[in-house]
Amino acid sequence: MTTSTTDATPLASRELDELYRGFEQERLVPLWTEIGDLMPLHPTPAAQPHAWRWNTLLPLAERAGELVPVGRGGERRAIALANPGLGGAPYATPTLWAAIQYLGPREVAPEHRHTQNAFRFVVEGEGVWTVVNGDPVAMRRGDFLLTPGWNFHGHHNTGDQPMAWLDGLDIPFVHYTGSAFFEFGADAVSDVSTPDRSRAERLWAHPGLRPVSQTAQLTNSPIAAYRWEHTDAALTEQLDLEAEGHPGVVEPGHAAVRYSNPTTGGDVMATLRAEFHRLRAGTVTATRQEVGSAVWQVFSGRGTVRLGEREWQVGHGDLFVVPSWVPVTLEAETELNLFRFSDAPIFEALRQDRVQVKGQQR
Amino acid sequence: MTTSTTDATPLASRELDELYRGFEQERLVPLWTEIGDLMPLHPTPAAQPHAWRWNTLLPLAERAGELVPVGRGGERRAIALANPGLGGAPYATPTLWAAIQYLGPREVAPEHRHTQNAFRFVVEGEGVWTVVNGDPVAMRRGDFLLTPGWNFHGHHNTGDQPMAWLDGLDIPFVHYTGSAFFEFGADAVSDVSTPDRSRAERLWAHPGLRPVSQTAQLTNSPIAAYRWEHTDAALTEQLDLEAEGHPGVVEPGHAAVRYSNPTTGGDVMATLRAEFHRLRAGTVTATRQEVGSAVWQVFSGRGTVRLGEREWQVGHGDLFVVPSWVPVTLEAETELNLFRFSDAPIFEALRQDRVQVKGQQR
Amino acid sequence: MTTSTTDATPLASRELDELYRGFEQERLVPLWTEIGDLMPLHPTPAAQPHAWRWNTLLPLAERAGELVPVGRGGERRAIALANPGLGGAPYATPTLWAAIQYLGPREVAPEHRHTQNAFRFVVEGEGVWTVVNGDPVAMRRGDFLLTPGWNFHGHHNTGDQPMAWLDGLDIPFVHYTGSAFFEFGADAVSDVSTPDRSRAERLWAHPGLRPVSQTAQLTNSPIAAYRWEHTDAALTEQLDLEAEGHPGVVEPGHAAVRYSNPTTGGDVMATLRAEFHRLRAGTVTATRQEVGSAVWQVFSGRGTVRLGEREWQVGHGDLFVVPSWVPVTLEAETELNLFRFSDAPIFEALRQDRVQVKGQQR
Amino acid sequence: MTTSTTDATPLASRELDELYRGFEQERLVPLWTEIGDLMPLHPTPAAQPHAWRWNTLLPLAERAGELVPVGRGGERRAIALANPGLGGAPYATPTLWAAIQYLGPREVAPEHRHTQNAFRFVVEGEGVWTVVNGDPVAMRRGDFLLTPGWNFHGHHNTGDQPMAWLDGLDIPFVHYTGSAFFEFGADAVSDVSTPDRSRAERLWAHPGLRPVSQTAQLTNSPIAAYRWEHTDAALTEQLDLEAEGHPGVVEPGHAAVRYSNPTTGGDVMATLRAEFHRLRAGTVTATRQEVGSAVWQVFSGRGTVRLGEREWQVGHGDLFVVPSWVPVTLEAETELNLFRFSDAPIFEALRQDRVQVKGQQR
Repeated sequence: MTTSTTDATPLASRELDELYRGFEQERLVPLWTEIGDLMPLHPTPAAQPHAWRWNTLLPLAERAGELVPVGRGGERRAIALANPGLGGAPYATPTLWAAIQYLGPREVAPEHRHTQNAFRFVVEGEGVWTVVNGDPVAMRRGDFLLTPGWNFHGHHNTGDQPMAWLDGLDIPFVHYTGSAFFEFGADAVSDVSTPDRSRAERLWAHPGLRPVSQTAQLTNSPIAAYRWEHTDAALTEQLDLEAEGHPGVVEPGHAAVRYSNPTTGGDVMATLRAEFHRLRAGTVTATRQEVGSAVWQVFSGRGTVRLGEREWQVGHGDLFVVPSWVPVTLEAETELNLFRFSDAPIFEALRQDRVQVKGQQR
Repeated sequence: MTTSTTDATPLASRELDELYRGFEQERLVPLWTEIGDLMPLHPTPAAQPHAWRWNTLLPLAERAGELVPVGRGGERRAIALANPGLGGAPYATPTLWAAIQYLGPREVAPEHRHTQNAFRFVVEGEGVWTVVNGDPVAMRRGDFLLTPGWNFHGHHNTGDQPMAWLDGLDIPFVHYTGSAFFEFGADAVSDVSTPDRSRAERLWAHPGLRPVSQTAQLTNSPIAAYRWEHTDAALTEQLDLEAEGHPGVVEPGHAAVRYSNPTTGGDVMATLRAEFHRLRAGTVTATRQEVGSAVWQVFSGRGTVRLGEREWQVGHGDLFVVPSWVPVTLEAETELNLFRFSDAPIFEALRQDRVQVKGQQR
Repeated sequence: MTTSTTDATPLASRELDELYRGFEQERLVPLWTEIGDLMPLHPTPAAQPHAWRWNTLLPLAERAGELVPVGRGGERRAIALANPGLGGAPYATPTLWAAIQYLGPREVAPEHRHTQNAFRFVVEGEGVWTVVNGDPVAMRRGDFLLTPGWNFHGHHNTGDQPMAWLDGLDIPFVHYTGSAFFEFGADAVSDVSTPDRSRAERLWAHPGLRPVSQTAQLTNSPIAAYRWEHTDAALTEQLDLEAEGHPGVVEPGHAAVRYSNPTTGGDVMATLRAEFHRLRAGTVTATRQEVGSAVWQVFSGRGTVRLGEREWQVGHGDLFVVPSWVPVTLEAETELNLFRFSDAPIFEALRQDRVQVKGQQR
Repeated sequence: MTTSTTDATPLASRELDELYRGFEQERLVPLWTEIGDLMPLHPTPAAQPHAWRWNTLLPLAERAGELVPVGRGGERRAIALANPGLGGAPYATPTLWAAIQYLGPREVAPEHRHTQNAFRFVVEGEGVWTVVNGDPVAMRRGDFLLTPGWNFHGHHNTGDQPMAWLDGLDIPFVHYTGSAFFEFGADAVSDVSTPDRSRAERLWAHPGLRPVSQTAQLTNSPIAAYRWEHTDAALTEQLDLEAEGHPGVVEPGHAAVRYSNPTTGGDVMATLRAEFHRLRAGTVTATRQEVGSAVWQVFSGRGTVRLGEREWQVGHGDLFVVPSWVPVTLEAETELNLFRFSDAPIFEALRQDRVQVKGQQR
């Protein structure tokens, strides 16, 4: 009834050239010449697996601390990972921004707000308070701090030592899709007090308890800071439970917690997922491929990460980037602690998520 | 206690140059030189407002019909709108693909499936059946047809006349974020029958009724085709209700329906919104800015569209593109019927949506 | 380590009597004497399976039409099914109210509103309009009409013939749990016009289309009336699809549609589910047990219903009641059409739902 | 056009008597004689406000400990509050069960499971472990423990002292609506170990952290025990924040936390809400009316509770019951700590919830 399909490649000809010129002139592009790139059999990201060394990053940040003032206009002394596959853009992946931010003694990063979601993760140091909507949040080693979209925030270093930490945002995604708004706030932080815990934590960081005065579901987690002591305890328990023969770990020797929004049980912010992973010495994880990209930072320990065909030895503070669908395998030489963040909530919300795990290799 | 903020622009110097070289070498980019572009006060899309003329597009498509075979490999004889601001990429906007697809008499576009969500909108003609997972769906003027992600589909023209229609997909978004999967299917369509209505419609296209055999929420609408007769009737009723003094229209003289998923009440697919708008002759809409981008096609009538500073007279089949946050105003010279699709579900799911409407100007 | 458990029945004694008197005096009741009744192995409802004959009900309703005025105070000339197991209460089941309502020529049932959800199903007749928040809704054979909680509504018969129909509400549930509110409205209906279709239908009863002016999820379906022509067409299609070898029916020979809320895909109201079932002549359904209770009304045809150990021959207008967990089997002598409503949304919302189906017996 | 409504009361007559006899014979009840009771202007619960004294309850429980064995058949030595308005049924309210359960030294309450949701709240004592699906959960003063529907559970007292605590369940609701299932389990508890914390807590009771191995939404909270130390700390923080001028309390002098499901942010179980309230000495709460019923138990302190027209002085361990829509006002003589549970999730899920608060009277 219908004719069978034929090979779709048109023969080169003067007429075809003319047609293509007509397309170009009218701002048109044919699918048939582009489909292999546009619609591949599986994700073929431009972004590349890559690793950055903490002991390279930190000296550069310190040098920036000497040469580059922090203040209104530049806003932050933040130095972003630029994926080698993304043409020099300051993007760790097409969706994720990852930067080392550096604040010298007594320095202040002024207040502003933006629709981009942001967090901080502290691999070392202390002495800085992030002030979120007037609530001062102490930053200490191992802590994970939130500044969700459209919350005013600034940072100030109250101590005599500089401090550097990891900033994670969805800047590339927001920039690409065109949803960015920004407003300047106060030049100084709006509350210079230095409490041990933020008011947000005092209200919200109690396991399974929420204030009766606030019972709605919130887009973003109201917990301003997830403290290391809790993260560490939760991971320790998972490994202890495993040792006792009970479930809880992701796979043998591999404990992991996800930072969550206590008002929904979901991710801390609508575009960003954050987790902390701990591997016993000697553990080799299953190889995992996942739609969406991730950035990892080693918190402590030593190990090897294989990303597709490439491999890096990693240690304290080192960062590595996993583009979409690139297979990841971690191997722990010592106990290995890693912070991880990803864009998975985007794909889950849009039903574009897919995961493939190959049997653990231990 | 804390020092006041200072101007953040570092002075040019040899040391600074050296620092920047260090950054480059280590695949790093400072925020302070990029922030104005990366984090603007409001969306500043690279995509530009633009219009394409149906009477330019169609002859080019017809010429392609003569020169370019359709079949396996090229897969579809589709010619995509390439936004002038996006460097020649076949993208209507950073997230949306819009193409005119052309199928000659008796031609077949082979079956395949992909994770990209797709639809067809028919501005004129008939005779083609789209076969979705083995269910043949007739295409007729005014119809809106779905081929959601990961459903096998092919097209075949059963008649003696060529047919051209609008394809809409989320290809640019899926490509950018790296979630594309693709599989080839049968070379011919898997069911060559030509029923008036698809089985999906027979099961699902009854107002407010769903089969008891299928009560789960589905990611994508199970209604394979939204027929023009229903769309037209719904719009007619809205304007009649307005004339009788009752609510229903979006604003005076402006009726609109959203194609929806009857199992959720939400959008037809997770990344794409589709609507049909009808303006009475003489109506001028309020000016609307919205996060996210849209493509419109005039179905019938004549009018003027203002996109920011630019303006186009538009008529049957003409297409225009609205980048994120660009103000849109429509003015109907005659009764004006328009199909519209957008990426709004992405922003709503991720809580990045924002809308601003300035009082109707009539 | 711990002692083994022992028989829990205490020995009768003077001391025990004294203890029990103490309990009674202090408004206490021991669990151990009640647990068998309170916490049975499976639901043991007090309500009984029962059937009511239309040709018994209708004459009684007609007689009430002669003797009992309709108006403010009594509000409605409605006669409720009183389950034989529920001690004379006007309850079809512990949660459901089912009544025949009767309105003579030119009679008016005044407006009021209440938090109880209500619907009407029309087994025969026409000429009455239900006015819901000022929107007149015609009642005709086969139609299913909604008056969700807290909407003002009244009825008036515009014709020369009396009309009787089925009212369904969640009165017993609301009464038991204590959430009832009620307000009187106008003595006459607020709009005496008699349009063929309500404004609600004109806005909402288009398959898969919703007005862009109203995009929120609504607790209750905005479709005021589900017309017989649509229900009939949907059922016809399911059986045709079955005959052609395609899925769609619940089980062989058994088509069914659920009335749904187009803004959510869920049930029409938060406490009530409504469906229409059609069995081909000769079909015997699988035997189904379900947590929660249901009321069925035969719309047309003849058949047999088995409820647990009991069995009834049923025909036009006959009603029968299925208490929780009572096995139901239907057998169609002729083509059999049945309306059904139940309290299933209550159990699904509270995760107390459970269903068990025994293989179809055909 | 339509006739005006008339008084709806029919005149007494022989014919009317005959009609009513006909109704009775056919298992029918007219609405017009029942509507005032069935559909009141606002909730008029049969249940009454009532209070029970701990120092009356406890001696009766102790006496039951001497006379009544605990074991298979009776299952639990639990003594239920029987609301004076509910005809002697063991129901605190139409939906809620509240009982004092008593376990002597070394006694065991055997394992079983049921669809009813259950919890324990410990007003004093320790030494009992509740074993939930094989996970031993220590019970200590101030703790709130879950045994959600269909989880096997038993209790055993490992110490030399008896222990009594509050059991809360949805037994009356489940019984009325007919959704009860029950299964017997082991006669002894399945794990006799006596860990300080349950495995469930070790996995789940970390603020804002969840195991990556379990990321689904769960119907019931996986936190087996909410420990007093966390509840106390959260309440203390709320009052401290208030003293410092920050939000967090429900109203001046009134702190409250809701026990929540960390996988959803919602209530701990689908039918039961549980909260803990703390009032500063001298605080008088606003008067609050709420659809649905609640049971309160004083944990510590002294005060007055006004329920509608009635008033009780209450102290340690005393229980009081608030039927639907009865106004509640609490006045704290000393610092007053109260546990509260209610059926609010039922009404919220079914959109029957309504709350009215009259300005605080302090």
